[in-house]
Amino acid sequence: MNQLIGEHTAGQQLDVGLLGVPLSRSSITASAASDNPNAIRSIWKSFGTYNIDYDVDLADLRIADLGDVKMHVTDIPRCHHNIEEAMVEALSRNPAYFPVSIGGDHSITCPLVKGFQRHHSGKTIGILQFDAHFDLRNLQDGGPSNGTPMRGLIESGTIEGRHIVNIGPHGYFNAYAYKKYADEHSVNYYTLRQVRKQGIEHVMVEALTYLREQVDLIYVTVDIDVLDAAFAPAAPASTPGGMWSSELLEALYIAGQEPRTAALDIVCLDPARDPRHLITVKTGAYVIMNVLCGIKYRMQQT
Amino acid sequence: MNQLIGEHTAGQQLDVGLLGVPLSRSSITASAASDNPNAIRSIWKSFGTYNIDYDVDLADLRIADLGDVKMHVTDIPRCHHNIEEAMVEALSRNPAYFPVSIGGDHSITCPLVKGFQRHHSGKTIGILQFDAHFDLRNLQDGGPSNGTPMRGLIESGTIEGRHIVNIGPHGYFNAYAYKKYADEHSVNYYTLRQVRKQGIEHVMVEALTYLREQVDLIYVTVDIDVLDAAFAPAAPASTPGGMWSSELLEALYIAGQEPRTAALDIVCLDPARDPRHLITVKTGAYVIMNVLCGIKYRMQQT
Amino acid sequence: MNQLIGEHTAGQQLDVGLLGVPLSRSSITASAASDNPNAIRSIWKSFGTYNIDYDVDLADLRIADLGDVKMHVTDIPRCHHNIEEAMVEALSRNPAYFPVSIGGDHSITCPLVKGFQRHHSGKTIGILQFDAHFDLRNLQDGGPSNGTPMRGLIESGTIEGRHIVNIGPHGYFNAYAYKKYADEHSVNYYTLRQVRKQGIEHVMVEALTYLREQVDLIYVTVDIDVLDAAFAPAAPASTPGGMWSSELLEALYIAGQEPRTAALDIVCLDPARDPRHLITVKTGAYVIMNVLCGIKYRMQQT
Amino acid sequence: MNQLIGEHTAGQQLDVGLLGVPLSRSSITASAASDNPNAIRSIWKSFGTYNIDYDVDLADLRIADLGDVKMHVTDIPRCHHNIEEAMVEALSRNPAYFPVSIGGDHSITCPLVKGFQRHHSGKTIGILQFDAHFDLRNLQDGGPSNGTPMRGLIESGTIEGRHIVNIGPHGYFNAYAYKKYADEHSVNYYTLRQVRKQGIEHVMVEALTYLREQVDLIYVTVDIDVLDAAFAPAAPASTPGGMWSSELLEALYIAGQEPRTAALDIVCLDPARDPRHLITVKTGAYVIMNVLCGIKYRMQQT
Amino acid sequence: MNQLIGEHTAGQQLDVGLLGVPLSRSSITASAASDNPNAIRSIWKSFGTYNIDYDVDLADLRIADLGDVKMHVTDIPRCHHNIEEAMVEALSRNPAYFPVSIGGDHSITCPLVKGFQRHHSGKTIGILQFDAHFDLRNLQDGGPSNGTPMRGLIESGTIEGRHIVNIGPHGYFNAYAYKKYADEHSVNYYTLRQVRKQGIEHVMVEALTYLREQVDLIYVTVDIDVLDAAFAPAAPASTPGGMWSSELLEALYIAGQEPRTAALDIVCLDPARDPRHLITVKTGAYVIMNVLCGIKYRMQQT
Amino acid sequence: MNQLIGEHTAGQQLDVGLLGVPLSRSSITASAASDNPNAIRSIWKSFGTYNIDYDVDLADLRIADLGDVKMHVTDIPRCHHNIEEAMVEALSRNPAYFPVSIGGDHSITCPLVKGFQRHHSGKTIGILQFDAHFDLRNLQDGGPSNGTPMRGLIESGTIEGRHIVNIGPHGYFNAYAYKKYADEHSVNYYTLRQVRKQGIEHVMVEALTYLREQVDLIYVTVDIDVLDAAFAPAAPASTPGGMWSSELLEALYIAGQEPRTAALDIVCLDPARDPRHLITVKTGAYVIMNVLCGIKYRMQQT
Repeated sequence: MNQLIGEHTAGQQLDVGLLGVPLSRSSITASAASDNPNAIRSIWKSFGTYNIDYDVDLADLRIADLGDVKMHVTDIPRCHHNIEEAMVEALSRNPAYFPVSIGGDHSITCPLVKGFQRHHSGKTIGILQFDAHFDLRNLQDGGPSNGTPMRGLIESGTIEGRHIVNIGPHGYFNAYAYKKYADEHSVNYYTLRQVRKQGIEHVMVEALTYLREQVDLIYVTVDIDVLDAAFAPAAPASTPGGMWSSELLEALYIAGQEPRTAALDIVCLDPARDPRHLITVKTGAYVIMNVLCGIKYRMQQT
Repeated sequence: MNQLIGEHTAGQQLDVGLLGVPLSRSSITASAASDNPNAIRSIWKSFGTYNIDYDVDLADLRIADLGDVKMHVTDIPRCHHNIEEAMVEALSRNPAYFPVSIGGDHSITCPLVKGFQRHHSGKTIGILQFDAHFDLRNLQDGGPSNGTPMRGLIESGTIEGRHIVNIGPHGYFNAYAYKKYADEHSVNYYTLRQVRKQGIEHVMVEALTYLREQVDLIYVTVDIDVLDAAFAPAAPASTPGGMWSSELLEALYIAGQEPRTAALDIVCLDPARDPRHLITVKTGAYVIMNVLCGIKYRMQQT
Repeated sequence: MNQLIGEHTAGQQLDVGLLGVPLSRSSITASAASDNPNAIRSIWKSFGTYNIDYDVDLADLRIADLGDVKMHVTDIPRCHHNIEEAMVEALSRNPAYFPVSIGGDHSITCPLVKGFQRHHSGKTIGILQFDAHFDLRNLQDGGPSNGTPMRGLIESGTIEGRHIVNIGPHGYFNAYAYKKYADEHSVNYYTLRQVRKQGIEHVMVEALTYLREQVDLIYVTVDIDVLDAAFAPAAPASTPGGMWSSELLEALYIAGQEPRTAALDIVCLDPARDPRHLITVKTGAYVIMNVLCGIKYRMQQT
Repeated sequence: MNQLIGEHTAGQQLDVGLLGVPLSRSSITASAASDNPNAIRSIWKSFGTYNIDYDVDLADLRIADLGDVKMHVTDIPRCHHNIEEAMVEALSRNPAYFPVSIGGDHSITCPLVKGFQRHHSGKTIGILQFDAHFDLRNLQDGGPSNGTPMRGLIESGTIEGRHIVNIGPHGYFNAYAYKKYADEHSVNYYTLRQVRKQGIEHVMVEALTYLREQVDLIYVTVDIDVLDAAFAPAAPASTPGGMWSSELLEALYIAGQEPRTAALDIVCLDPARDPRHLITVKTGAYVIMNVLCGIKYRMQQT
Repeated sequence: MNQLIGEHTAGQQLDVGLLGVPLSRSSITASAASDNPNAIRSIWKSFGTYNIDYDVDLADLRIADLGDVKMHVTDIPRCHHNIEEAMVEALSRNPAYFPVSIGGDHSITCPLVKGFQRHHSGKTIGILQFDAHFDLRNLQDGGPSNGTPMRGLIESGTIEGRHIVNIGPHGYFNAYAYKKYADEHSVNYYTLRQVRKQGIEHVMVEALTYLREQVDLIYVTVDIDVLDAAFAPAAPASTPGGMWSSELLEALYIAGQEPRTAALDIVCLDPARDPRHLITVKTGAYVIMNVLCGIKYRMQQT
Repeated sequence: MNQLIGEHTAGQQLDVGLLGVPLSRSSITASAASDNPNAIRSIWKSFGTYNIDYDVDLADLRIADLGDVKMHVTDIPRCHHNIEEAMVEALSRNPAYFPVSIGGDHSITCPLVKGFQRHHSGKTIGILQFDAHFDLRNLQDGGPSNGTPMRGLIESGTIEGRHIVNIGPHGYFNAYAYKKYADEHSVNYYTLRQVRKQGIEHVMVEALTYLREQVDLIYVTVDIDVLDAAFAPAAPASTPGGMWSSELLEALYIAGQEPRTAALDIVCLDPARDPRHLITVKTGAYVIMNVLCGIKYRMQQT
C-alpha cells in the first residue's frame, strides 16, 4: 500500500484520508498506543492493493496520509481539543472524503465524533462499535479517558444511546453498572456469544439494517481489544474467549459496503506489546484495508 | 474478582473455596506449574464479577481463598499425602462448599479425588476430564507423576474407568497402549475430532447425561494442555490442532450448570512459559470463573 | 517418532524417506528456513506414532531420514541443481517410497518437482498447493526464488497450469498481475474465504476429484505461510485472517488418503522466529505426520 | 525484605518510608514507569536484609511502605500537585525519617524536591543526580515532563544550579543547548568517560566533599537510564556505553554513608520492558537497598 | 567440540568424561536445570577446540560423553543415591580421568563429592566454589535441596568447612545465619566486592595457594548464579551486581592449571530461561572448556 | 542525527556518505544482516549530534545517505560485483568524502576494499579490523562468504597480510589452521585477553602507530561479533567473554582521530535477533557516530 498512499497536497481531491491520533496518555492503564499510527504506517509495505478473497483492487482509490494531530506533552484537554478541531478542519478541506483515524486510545473517539458531528450538523450520526467493553464509565472520577468515550458522546448530546450498536462485549470485563447504563440508554449490543450463535454475517446485516433506519451516517469505531488475546496480543485489554480476526475482518468488509458508513477509527493497539511478527499491527492495517475494500466494492456497483 | 474473594475466616459459611496446590516437581518434564496458584491469584484483578455473555453476576457468591497446601521441598510422597488430607479437612470444615483446586501438575488430581471420595464415602464419583492425554501411565516406572492420575484412581479402586469421561484427547500424544488400557477399562472419551464434528454443546449434553445416570457426584479436572498451542502457550504439552478456548469455556459453563458437578481442579499451567500478556493464566482464571457462572446460574434457577 | 525414524541403510526397503533441503538464501526476504530440517528432526521426540483422532498407528511404516541435500554457501544455482539430482537419485534407489522433502524456502519445489517428473517420465504430475500466495513471479527479475516455483514449473513445461490446485490464497498478498497470470494459465485456486464458506472437507473432495481426473500423480506442497499468524508465527509471510491449523491438518490427512498422492514438501518455516513453545515447528512436523496417517489409512484399506 | 517492610501505622516512628509515585503519563515518550512502584514491591521478596559485601544488616531499620500518591487519570497538573503535598505531609508526620520515592518518570522529582524544600525551609538543598541526561529542557514547549525537572527546580528558585551534581551524562543524548544552559547555571557534572578515567569512588568522594561544603541536605535522584542498556534494558532511554550496575551500586552505598544525604528517588524504570528475569526491577530495588546500607553503616558508626 | 567429544567405549582410556546429571526437581524454586546437560551438548558445535587467548588446543584430549545419570521421576532420594554411585562407578572404570558433571541443580554436588571422596578415600578433598550463595541451609526443613550441598558435605563429615573456598558471595542473598554458620565452621570466602578490589587473578592465586597447603585434591563447583544477571539471565538466582563472565572464565582457566584440581561440576543453569542467543548455555560450555584449557596447559608444561 | 543526515543531491560536496550494503545471503549461517542498513537508519532519531563525553558536535558535518547498493535476489557474485562498483563510483563522484558502508555480512568487506583500492591506486591500504574471528577461511570450499574477506583480500593481492591489524580475536572460535595462516602471512592481531591486560587505549596507540608507518590509508572494519553476547545479542556469532561496548566505542573514537583513517564498514549485525530495546542496533549506530566524532575532533585541531 506504499504504492497506494500518497503525501497530501493542498487542494487535492481525496477518497480517503488517514489521520494519525497519537494520544494514549489518557489511557487508564499505561499504554503506548500513541506509537500505533507510525506502526501502521510502517506495515503498509507488507500489503498489496489487490484483495483476492473479494477480487477488489484498491489501486485507484485516492488515499493520502494526512499526518498526525499535534499533541501536547502534558495537557490532555488540549490534546482532545486538537483532535476535534483536526477532524473538523480535515472534513472542511475534503468534504467528500472518508476519514480514517488511527489511534491512540479510545478516548479519541469522543472528540473525533464531536468534530464529525459538527461538520455534518443536521445529520443524525450512529456508531457501529466493535469492542469488548461498553466504554460507558462516568467522566467525574478520572475525566475523559479510554473508558468513557461512549458516555461522553451520550452525555454531551452528540449521539443518542439508541444510535449505538456495540458488537462484541464479552466475558467479565464490564461492570454490571455499565450494562445497566447501556440498557437505560437503549444502547444496542450483541454479546460475543450471540455473535457466535447467529454468525457474524447475520449480525452485521441486522445491525446495519437497524442503523440504516435510524441514522444518516455511520461512524465505525474498532477497539482492537474485541479480539481474542491469541489474535491480538498487543491489545492490552484483549482476553481469551474474544473475537477471531477472521470474524472481525469479514464484519468490516460488510460494514464498508454500507453506503451510510462514513468514517472509521481504530484504537487501543499498543505496538510495544506485539510479538516480533507484529500480528496485531498487521491486523490493525488489515481492518482499515477491509473497510476500504467494502467501500471500493460499493463504488464499483454504482 | 478481588472484589469477590475474601480471606477465609474460621467458621465462615462458604459457597466456593480456592485451594492452591503448588506441586510440580512430580511432573515428568520440568514444570513451574507450582507457580500457577499465585499467578491465578494475581490475575483476578483483571476480571470483574459480572459476565455479560451469560448475564450472571458472581458478586454475592461467598468465595474464599483457602491458601496453599503445605509442600515439602524434596519429599514428593509427603506432598501427595498433604494434598489428600487438605481436601478431606477443607471439606469437613465446609461440607457444603464447592472446592476449586489450582495446581500444580496433574499428579495432584489423584490425591484430591481420593480425599474427595473419603469425604463423600458411599457416593459414586465420576470424573469429567478435559485433557489432550489419557493420563493412564503405569505407576511402576516413575511413581505417581502427572502422567498417571487416572490410572492411580482406577488401580486404587477410587474411581471406575467407566465413570471417567475424557473430552479432548487428540493427535499423536497418547501411546496406543494407553488407548488400549482405556478401552479395556471402559474409560469414555471424545477425541477432539469428534468434538469438532458434533459440536461441543452436543458433546457436553451427551457426556453429562451419561454421567448423571452413572454417578452421584462429578469431579471436573481441566488439564490446560487440552487447548491448542495458539491459545495456551504456557501449557508445556499443548500442541497445534488442540481445542479452542471458546470451546473449552463454553463447555465449562455447561458443566457448572449440572447439579451433580461438585468439584473442580485445573492443572499443568506453567506461568513461566506464558508470553507477556499472560494469555494462558487469564484462560486458567476464566475456566474457574465460567464453572462458577454455571453454578450461579443453576442457583438462580432454584 | 524417534521410535519411528531409523537411519537409512543402503538397499533397505522404505515406505517413506525424509530429505532435508536446507536452502533459504534464495528467499526474497532474509529467512532461516534452512534451519528447519534440523528443527523438525529435533521435535519428533514430542510426537508418538499413534494418532487417536484417526485411530491410525504409524509404528510399522518403514521411514528413514535420508539426511540433507548438500548445499553450497554462495552458489545458489548449484544448490538448485543438487536438489533436483537428489530427488532423482533418491527415487532411483527407492522407487516405491514416498518422498517427503523438508525445506528450506519455496524455491526448492521447482527442482524437487523437476526431479520427481524426470523419475516419473511419461506420467502427468499435478500439484496440490497450500499457500497464501500463487508463487507465480517472473524469473527474469531475481532468478528462481521463493516467489517463483509455480511459474518456473509452468514455464519449463514441467507442469501445466491447469494441473495446479492452490488452496488458501487470501488477503492482499498477491499482486493482481499474478492472479491474471493464474487465470490465463488456468491455475485452479480456492481463496480462503471460499474454503471457509464451503468447508475444508468439501474443498478437498472437490480438488482431489478434479486432480484424479487430470493427472497420474499428485505432488503436495505446503507453504506454511498459508496459516494465520496466530497459528504460524514462524512463517515470515503468514498474516492475520489465514487458515487455522485444524483446517490444514484435516486437509492433509485427506490428501494422504488419496492414492495418487505421491510426494510432499513443506517450506518457508523459519524456526528462528518461533516463540519458545515452538508452535510452528510442531505444526510442520504434524503436517508431515498427518499425510503419513492418510497414507497408512489407505494402506490399511487395501 | 518482606521481613523488613511493615505496613504503616499512624504515629509510628520510622527510619525510612517508601512512597510510590505512579505517574508516567507525563513522560515524553510512552512509558509504563507508573507500574514500577508495584514492580519494586513485588521483587523485595527475592532480597534478604543482610548484605555480605558490606557486612551490614538492615533488619532493625524501621521501614514502612506508605502506599502510593493518589493520581488523576487525565489531569497531570493535579498529579504533580498531589506529589508535592504528599512529600510535605509525609515529612510533617514523620520528621525524622528518610523518604524514598519510587517513580514514575523523572517529572516527579520537581514536585518532590519542592515539597522537601518546603518542609526544610531555611535549609539549602543540593541534588546528587545519576542520569544520562541533564533534564534541563524548557517548560514552555510541553509543560513539566520527564525532560524538565532540573530546569523546573532552578527556574522556580527551589534549587541553585551550582548545588546540582550530575554523575553520568554521556553519549549523544543531550542537545548542546542543554549543556550550555548547564554551564551558564553552574550545574556540575561528571561525564561517564570522566567517571571511568577517575573511578567511581574518587568521583563520589569529590562530589560529596563539594556538596558538603555547599548545602545542608542532599537529595539523591537516580534516573535508571544512566545505566548501560545491557544492565538496564527496561530504562527506555538507556543506551550502549552507559554506566555498569556495579558502579552505580557502589556509588549509592557511598552516598548513603554521607550524613547530609536526606532523601532518595528512583525514576524512569518501565517494568513492562524488562525481560523475564526482571534485571532492571531488581536493580531498582538494589539501588534503594544500597542507599539504606550506607545509612545503616553510618548509624552504626555513631 | 563435536570434533572433540566421542562416544564412550568400554575400556577406553579417557582424559575427561562428561556426565549429565539431569536433576532439578530438588530445587527450592521451580527449575528446568535438568534440561541443561542436553542444552550444553547441543551448543558444543559452536565451539572449536583451539583457544586463541591461551594458544591452547584441546584437540588431542580424549574426552567422552558418558551420558546421563539415570533419574527417577518422583523419588528424589533415589536420584541422589544414583548420582553418588555414578560418580563412584565412573571413577572406578576410569581412575585417571577428570570428571565433569553437568547439572542439574546444586543439590547434586553433595552426592557427587561423596562419591568422589569414596573413590579417593584417604585423601583430603577441598572445594573451590563459585557461587552467589553459601548453600549452607539446614537439611531438616526441606531435605537435601539446592540450598544445602555445602551443609550436607560438612555435616556428613565428607568435607571440613575450612577446606571450602567460596568465591563470589554478594548482595542480599545470604541470610545472616548462614554467614554465621560459615564463620563458625571456618568456611573461607571472598565477597564479590573483595574480588573486585583485589582482582580475580590475585584472589585465585591466594585461594589456590591456601588449598594446596590444606588438601590433596580440589573439587571445583560452579553455580552459574555467581554471574551478574546481564551475563547469566538463565541462572534463576543471578542478580545485578554479580560477577562478569570475563572474570569467571579467567578464574576457571587458572583453576584448571592447578595440578590438584581433580573434578568439576556446573549447576543451576536453567536453559528454558535463556534468551534466543543462548548466552548462559554458551557460558556454561565455555566454563567447562576453560577448565580443560587450564588442564591442557598444565599437561603441556610437564 | 535525523537533523544531521540529508538526502544526497548530485554534485553536492560531502564530508561523509553512508552506503547501505544489504547483502547477507552470502553468510555461512542464515542471517538477516541485510536488514541492518534500514535498522540503523531508523535508529538515528534517538541520537543527537552533540557528544558530551568528547565535547564534539557533528552538526556541521555534511553527511548524506547514499541509499543502498542494488542487490540481486539469487546471484551472489553479481551482488559482490555491484558492491565493488558502488564504492568506486561513490568515490569518483565524491573524492574527498569519508565512506561509511553499512552491511550486510562480512563478505562485503572484500569488494568494498577492492573498490577502495581501485580508487586509491598507487596508495598502500591497511586494515584495522575489530573482530572475534580472523575471517581467513579458504575460498575454494564455499566461495566468498562472511568467513573469507581477509583471505580474499590477501589472495587477490589487494592487501598484504602484514598491513592488517585485528583487535579482538578470542575464545574457541578460530580454528588453529587460520591462526597458522595469519602467522604465516604476518597478519597482526591482539587477542582480547591482551587487550584486557594492556588496556584498549594502549593497544589502539600501538596499532595506529604501526599502521601509520606501514600504510597510506587505513580502512576500518567492525564485525559487531567482537562484542560480548551481553552487549551484542544480535550478532549471531557473539559469545560470552567478548569485548565490552565501552571498549569498542572508545577504540573507534581514537581510530577516527587518526588522519590516515579513510573508510569504515560495520557488518554482521542481524537486527532480527535484537531484543526489544534494540541494544545492538543502537551500538551499531554509536560505532559510526564515534568514528565521526574522532574525525570531527581531528578537523577541529587543524
